[in-house]
Amino acid sequence: MNRSELVEQIRIKGSFLCVGLDTDPARLPAILKNEKNPVLAFNKAIVEATADLAVSYKPNLAFYEAMGPEGWHILQETLAYIPATCFTIADAKRGDIGNTADAYARTFFHTYAFDSVTVNPYMGRDSVTPFLAFPDKWAIVLGLTSNPGAADVELLETTQGKVFEQVMDQVANWGTPDNTMFVVGATRPEALAEIRHRFPEHFFLVPGVGAQGGSLHDVYHAGVNGQCGLLVNASRSILYASSGSDFAEAARAEALRMQSEMKELMASNRL
Amino acid sequence: MNRSELVEQIRIKGSFLCVGLDTDPARLPAILKNEKNPVLAFNKAIVEATADLAVSYKPNLAFYEAMGPEGWHILQETLAYIPATCFTIADAKRGDIGNTADAYARTFFHTYAFDSVTVNPYMGRDSVTPFLAFPDKWAIVLGLTSNPGAADVELLETTQGKVFEQVMDQVANWGTPDNTMFVVGATRPEALAEIRHRFPEHFFLVPGVGAQGGSLHDVYHAGVNGQCGLLVNASRSILYASSGSDFAEAARAEALRMQSEMKELMASNRL
Repeated sequence: MNRSELVEQIRIKGSFLCVGLDTDPARLPAILKNEKNPVLAFNKAIVEATADLAVSYKPNLAFYEAMGPEGWHILQETLAYIPATCFTIADAKRGDIGNTADAYARTFFHTYAFDSVTVNPYMGRDSVTPFLAFPDKWAIVLGLTSNPGAADVELLETTQGKVFEQVMDQVANWGTPDNTMFVVGATRPEALAEIRHRFPEHFFLVPGVGAQGGSLHDVYHAGVNGQCGLLVNASRSILYASSGSDFAEAARAEALRMQSEMKELMASNRL
Repeated sequence: MNRSELVEQIRIKGSFLCVGLDTDPARLPAILKNEKNPVLAFNKAIVEATADLAVSYKPNLAFYEAMGPEGWHILQETLAYIPATCFTIADAKRGDIGNTADAYARTFFHTYAFDSVTVNPYMGRDSVTPFLAFPDKWAIVLGLTSNPGAADVELLETTQGKVFEQVMDQVANWGTPDNTMFVVGATRPEALAEIRHRFPEHFFLVPGVGAQGGSLHDVYHAGVNGQCGLLVNASRSILYASSGSDFAEAARAEALRMQSEMKELMASNRL
């Protein structure tokens, strides 16, 4: 999916919601226990309940990998349930170089046909640029994250700004706003506003709204650009809105609550 | 495998060789084309030809992931061929936080029973410490790598030394030399010597000898400690030593060449 198609979907749906499919087998509703494949049944129900409200889905690879080879079958079948009008993100945070990075890119773009993959920039240009060679595919590179450990590396002061600033400046030179996005955490809206000022065109994937405490209103006003430029992720607050037999309805209600707020925010900007 | 067991294996075998199983389906010898599972047959032959010479095996996850779910079955079956006396490394360079990092740790330590996994420290402590909670399991954290892109982030100057130095200092505080190793590239022996001075106890996983041009002699003298403290990886130079029907013999010959040099180097230090 290219940028204008994504922007079009955001406009049509009045939404910049990304639903994180961090499906934990230990947290499935009891009602699914007798399903042949409870994780897949859960994902299918969540996607069906939210597909008109979300513009994006983001499976968290760790949860699928932990299930063994079967987890990758579930991932593949989950992708088949996601409509082609939704932007798919492999939240894999891969970071390796040369032919290894190329193998990761082929994994997520060809073997599994994701639109994008999250990428860790620690090893520098050779770990990012191999993901940029695939038409209409995206690298979503870690910029400034919202976890406490961000202080340990990302926020270190270098002779020319903080580490994450140097990372993002370079990444913006290796790619373009048509093949590169950034991960920017929701819990630091002042930082998000500064980053938007520095990178007016790029899309930002923003986790940390919902269960992790960031405010959608603050994130929007700090991060919006003329094309919206935001994908705001919520995972647990939607997936586990209810652990009862009404889990899908509850997930939809929470997704609808977020999408309604998003639509209102966008309307206030005439987006 | 714990540290004293690893040190014992290095002594017994006169070797600190790690064989990187970066198995690329496109580079398999023609003789394997009619095998039911050519990649697995190749890995089995390589392991059988080198298991008395290598103390460690390091599958590169990207190559297995690119094969789809079947690649993970091959990985699992490959691990079953590796003797328990060899230290296994999942070269996965995972880096995520909290319950996601925990899911990656369970993936590699429980689902696949590796001894260790390579870890990317960009997101800070929350992305490293979850790997340290598993007895006799190891996080091998990226320190200074040998690719050109190392200049982009790892070698940036901060107010207190280079980024990779700050990373390694912190990682050394989060873990111990009994559950933490570092990745240090082979193509910068001066840097390796400085890093050894700073971290006298830790094991270093050193890629970049062989196809990538680092010298085993230089790496050894720069990096050795009283327990050897090194695992030197070679991948392509062993795996693809021959593309003919003698590929396993050629792999053994190259592994033996390296192990003989290692044994001689260790003898010169009475290790």
